[in-house]
Amino acid sequence: MQGVLEHALRLTLRLAQEPALTVAGRTDAGVHARGQVVHLDVPEAAAATVPAALRRLNRLLPPDVRVRAIAKAPAGFDSRFSALWRRYSYRVCDIPADADPLRRRDTLWHPAPLDLERMNEAAVACLGEHDFAAFCRRRAGASTIRELRRLDWQRTEPGVAVGTVIADAFCHNMVRALTGALLAIGDGRRPPGWLAEVLAAGIRNPAVTVAPPHPLCLEEVGYPGDAELASRAALTRRVRQAQPPGG
Amino acid sequence: MQGVLEHALRLTLRLAQEPALTVAGRTDAGVHARGQVVHLDVPEAAAATVPAALRRLNRLLPPDVRVRAIAKAPAGFDSRFSALWRRYSYRVCDIPADADPLRRRDTLWHPAPLDLERMNEAAVACLGEHDFAAFCRRRAGASTIRELRRLDWQRTEPGVAVGTVIADAFCHNMVRALTGALLAIGDGRRPPGWLAEVLAAGIRNPAVTVAPPHPLCLEEVGYPGDAELASRAALTRRVRQAQPPGG
Repeated sequence: MQGVLEHALRLTLRLAQEPALTVAGRTDAGVHARGQVVHLDVPEAAAATVPAALRRLNRLLPPDVRVRAIAKAPAGFDSRFSALWRRYSYRVCDIPADADPLRRRDTLWHPAPLDLERMNEAAVACLGEHDFAAFCRRRAGASTIRELRRLDWQRTEPGVAVGTVIADAFCHNMVRALTGALLAIGDGRRPPGWLAEVLAAGIRNPAVTVAPPHPLCLEEVGYPGDAELASRAALTRRVRQAQPPGG
Repeated sequence: MQGVLEHALRLTLRLAQEPALTVAGRTDAGVHARGQVVHLDVPEAAAATVPAALRRLNRLLPPDVRVRAIAKAPAGFDSRFSALWRRYSYRVCDIPADADPLRRRDTLWHPAPLDLERMNEAAVACLGEHDFAAFCRRRAGASTIRELRRLDWQRTEPGVAVGTVIADAFCHNMVRALTGALLAIGDGRRPPGWLAEVLAAGIRNPAVTVAPPHPLCLEEVGYPGDAELASRAALTRRVRQAQPPGG
């Protein structure tokens, strides 16, 4: 996606070379993004063409990549480091008779019915700041401490359950591992208390299945008011300097 | 789709040869169906295996074909001729900034905003029994008289308009031609009264663009109570005997 967008931006803005994009949430392969935010620096000359760029850009891009809006960023804005939080959704169909072939590319077909109350009860244990090492693929020198602000499941239509998760940031595999653990609780394979146990153990648990990527979608990235953009970016950089760009 | 399902049914029900399916609504190429209904006759021996067939069938079928339910049909049931009505939906995104790449395969990206009130005002002229020759690809010996029960548009989410159309049956291209005409009214290229004019002319109007097939979906087929299934089928057969199986 990033390469495709960089190429289209180069043509649209008539840049000498492909611009370097900074992406708010790097997603695992196969994960979708409906609410991605990127920033780039453009020469003064190209900036004048930006208002008209949206249409031209979308004409150049393949249909699976759309740019929804373009704006001049306020001073201090960094799409990755200024972000306060990321929101992801995970879409599951748990009643085979309700499986919709038209949504097969962004929906997990789970073979057993899910008890969402049970999942939501279990999920509470993960809220707040924790070391999520148990749910992350470990990377040398990278912190696995994150602040989870929301993790719950709702039935949005018959047979469809959608999980919503918000955190300041996520480590690699984290949402998919949390989802895999919650699915095992929701269909009765594990007790509700299992999630808290896995979290507390603090090491990658092989019993946690990482759920497939295609039902996961980055929906929204939250930023502070303009006045706090630069200070937030400086703070995040300090805290996560050693980390790989995992969003 | 029909061939794929016939093959899977042959294997699942252990039939000597592929069964002949009767389909409630034959759709144009590229049109989806979430609520298709089919019937078939099975030998007494195979009938016993039907209750367990649903799971086995869905395991055999590719992910773009799902069987939602299987049941023994009441006496006199004919999926095509007993049907009282068919309901289709047509999904359009009319605000480029809201275009969702994940729904590109079942959504038309229309380049201009649609005035749904204007479209709904125009659509009223088509309700009731009319000769829809103006919106149908003509076939020798086939009647183009249909009874339209519903034709209106609703905004289901920001930037998304969904058309709902119900009729006793549809001729070839009919929903897509009606939609093409309504889109031209909705974005201001034609006045609201144009639909009634085209309908009244009674001949295929080359100014009517047939809308693309991929946003169209057969959602539901309606049947009478068990007692009326056979008489309804007999009536439909009599009225539409000469027609090709266009649903």
